Amino acid sequence: MVKIITVEKSISAEKDCGIVNVTETIEEELNKTGLREGQVLIFTVGSTSGVSTIEYEPNLVKDFKEIIEDIIPKNRSYHHDYTWHDANGFSHLRSTFIKTSLVVPFKEGRLLLGTWQQIVIINFDNHRRQRRYILQFIGKD
Amino acid sequence: MVKIITVEKSISAEKDCGIVNVTETIEEELNKTGLREGQVLIFTVGSTSGVSTIEYEPNLVKDFKEIIEDIIPKNRSYHHDYTWHDANGFSHLRSTFIKTSLVVPFKEGRLLLGTWQQIVIINFDNHRRQRRYILQFIGKD
Amino acid sequence: MVKIITVEKSISAEKDCGIVNVTETIEEELNKTGLREGQVLIFTVGSTSGVSTIEYEPNLVKDFKEIIEDIIPKNRSYHHDYTWHDANGFSHLRSTFIKTSLVVPFKEGRLLLGTWQQIVIINFDNHRRQRRYILQFIGKD
Repeated sequence: MVKIITVEKSISAEKDCGIVNVTETIEEELNKTGLREGQVLIFTVGSTSGVSTIEYEPNLVKDFKEIIEDIIPKNRSYHHDYTWHDANGFSHLRSTFIKTSLVVPFKEGRLLLGTWQQIVIINFDNHRRQRRYILQFIGKD
Repeated sequence: MVKIITVEKSISAEKDCGIVNVTETIEEELNKTGLREGQVLIFTVGSTSGVSTIEYEPNLVKDFKEIIEDIIPKNRSYHHDYTWHDANGFSHLRSTFIKTSLVVPFKEGRLLLGTWQQIVIINFDNHRRQRRYILQFIGKD
Repeated sequence: MVKIITVEKSISAEKDCGIVNVTETIEEELNKTGLREGQVLIFTVGSTSGVSTIEYEPNLVKDFKEIIEDIIPKNRSYHHDYTWHDANGFSHLRSTFIKTSLVVPFKEGRLLLGTWQQIVIINFDNHRRQRRYILQFIGKD
């Protein structure tokens, strides 16, 4: 019998690509559900954050911050900065590219990730933020 | 008891990054299903469109069009343009990057979006198009 | 009655953006499940691969390899290359951008793809690899 369980979580994340590894938190929440086979949707609430997978080690985290600065630079004039004068046009655009949604399967009660594949939430905003995210499990026991 | 409901919709979208806010349409369709907790898959049919979230306001929409033109330029020669001679290689590449699929959770009958986070469908093609998209709800009442 | 069926598959893929069209394989696996309406999650295991949709024809595949080389270049120094000395920092970053997860709906036993829209798995690593991926079907018959 298939069940749906929704959990709301939050984390504190640094500004300008603060990357938080939430893999263990998700595994703990998965254990609490008792579900054995299914999938978890990770969804970050808001328009200046994102979710993806990465090998979570300090050098690669540094690389990610540098490459996204090349692709969608912070120090450039964006029209959006004239809408609210909060200077975070780049944060919004990064979010639209990386997107705020990710679905990961699990089986036998374990996430089907690679050894070096961690799930991360990224705060693209230009100030430290408490970021809310949703975990929604669909599965059977 | 978990249900699955599939709805097909379409919108008319401008060429070269016509961005359409479909959030209200999805909320209406969610209301019709009567489901209270679950998720909606938004999937755009075709290889020159995409779906993501954005703060839907005119200046940021303009920024998105400009930054994607920097990342995957329209005015550049693509091999694909020699396959069908329809000059939309850039449209396809933009679609592969932004992707045609997004999953958004809902609870108590409401999408769990941030206040400034809207769901948008983007037409990357080089002419105005009617774009078909699928809404698939999985949830319980 | 909603069912969940998880299948593990693997493919051999060339290095540096080896792109494999897995659409037919997914259709075959869908047929085996007997499910008529629902969705399939495609998830690539590992931190140097990705999954998306593309019009799978040789010229566009070439374009994809060239544009991603412009966006996240191979021949550039990455901090990650000093962590393991395997020179694949670019592979990881490409994976974090394209992401390892995609959800596609089906109805009447058929994937709701466009005519020119194929599902592909991409090996971003710098050597030929056997790549594992998960197909997880949620649906009803």
